[in-house]
Amino acid sequence: MNDKELMQRAIQRSAENIDNGGGPFGAVIVKDGEIIAEAGNSVTSTNDPTAHAEVNAIRMATKKLGTYDLSGCVIYSSCEPCPMCLGAIYWARLDRLYFAGTKTDAQDAGFDDSFIYDELELDYTKRKLHTEHIMRDEALAAFNKWKQFEGKEEY
Amino acid sequence: MNDKELMQRAIQRSAENIDNGGGPFGAVIVKDGEIIAEAGNSVTSTNDPTAHAEVNAIRMATKKLGTYDLSGCVIYSSCEPCPMCLGAIYWARLDRLYFAGTKTDAQDAGFDDSFIYDELELDYTKRKLHTEHIMRDEALAAFNKWKQFEGKEEY
Repeated sequence: MNDKELMQRAIQRSAENIDNGGGPFGAVIVKDGEIIAEAGNSVTSTNDPTAHAEVNAIRMATKKLGTYDLSGCVIYSSCEPCPMCLGAIYWARLDRLYFAGTKTDAQDAGFDDSFIYDELELDYTKRKLHTEHIMRDEALAAFNKWKQFEGKEEY
Repeated sequence: MNDKELMQRAIQRSAENIDNGGGPFGAVIVKDGEIIAEAGNSVTSTNDPTAHAEVNAIRMATKKLGTYDLSGCVIYSSCEPCPMCLGAIYWARLDRLYFAGTKTDAQDAGFDDSFIYDELELDYTKRKLHTEHIMRDEALAAFNKWKQFEGKEEY
C-alpha cells in the first residue's frame, strides 16, 4: 500500500470509529510496508483521556514489537496530532508522520487541540491551568540518584 | 496532607522508581484531600513509551473514578510535565498542577523534554520529525459526519 492508501485507511478508521461510539479519529502504524497497528480514539468507551487514536496505535505497536522504540516505523493519522500525541510520537521515535485534518479542523469539530497548543507556548504562570512550581531542590536529589545509578536503562 | 507533603510523596516515588527499574519520575493525584492515584514512570518495564508517571497516574485515577474527566482533582508531579503529559493533563481536565524538577533538569539527566517542547513550537515543515500533510479534504468528510451525528458523546 502506498502513502495515500494508508492514509485512506486511517481516515476510514476515523469515520467508522464514530459508529463505534468513539471520536472521529484514526491512526495506522507501518513498519517495512506492513501495517503493525491501527486504532481509533477510545476516550469515552474506555474512560481513558489519553486513549487518542495515535496513542492507542503506539501502545499496540510497541506491545506487538516488544519494545518502546518504534524507530523505522511511520504513522498515518487522520488528523494533526494534538500535543499529547505528538509528544508520544517523539518519545516512541517514529521516523515519519503523515496527517490529513488539521488542528483547526479538530477545533471546528469541538475538540481542544488548538487551545492546548496555545497553552503550551505560554509560560506556566500565564496558562489557564493553575500551576505552581515548588520543591525543586528536593527533586534534584532524585535526578542525581539517577545520574549516578549504574544499572539504569536509558530511554 | 498539605501540598508540600503530597509533593514529597511524588518525589519519594520518583526516587524509589529508580530502584524498581524505571525512570526518576513520580506523580500523585488527589481528590478532596485523598490520594486516588500514584505512579512512577514505567516506559522500560512495560515497553510503553507513553507510560510516564503523569499518564500512568491519570489512567489509574480515571479508571478508579469511572470517568475520563478529572475535574476537581490536583496532580503533583516530581518533574515539569513533558508536552505529552501536559496535554494529557489538559484532556483530563485536572484543576491544578504542582511540579518540582524542571524540563531543563530532566534534559540534564538525559531526557528529551526540552527538545520536544522546542520542536512543538516549530511549524511542522521545520521539525526534525519528517512530517507531511496530505488528503485534508478526505479527512474533512469524517469531521462533517461527526458534526452531524446526533448520538455523539462530546468530550
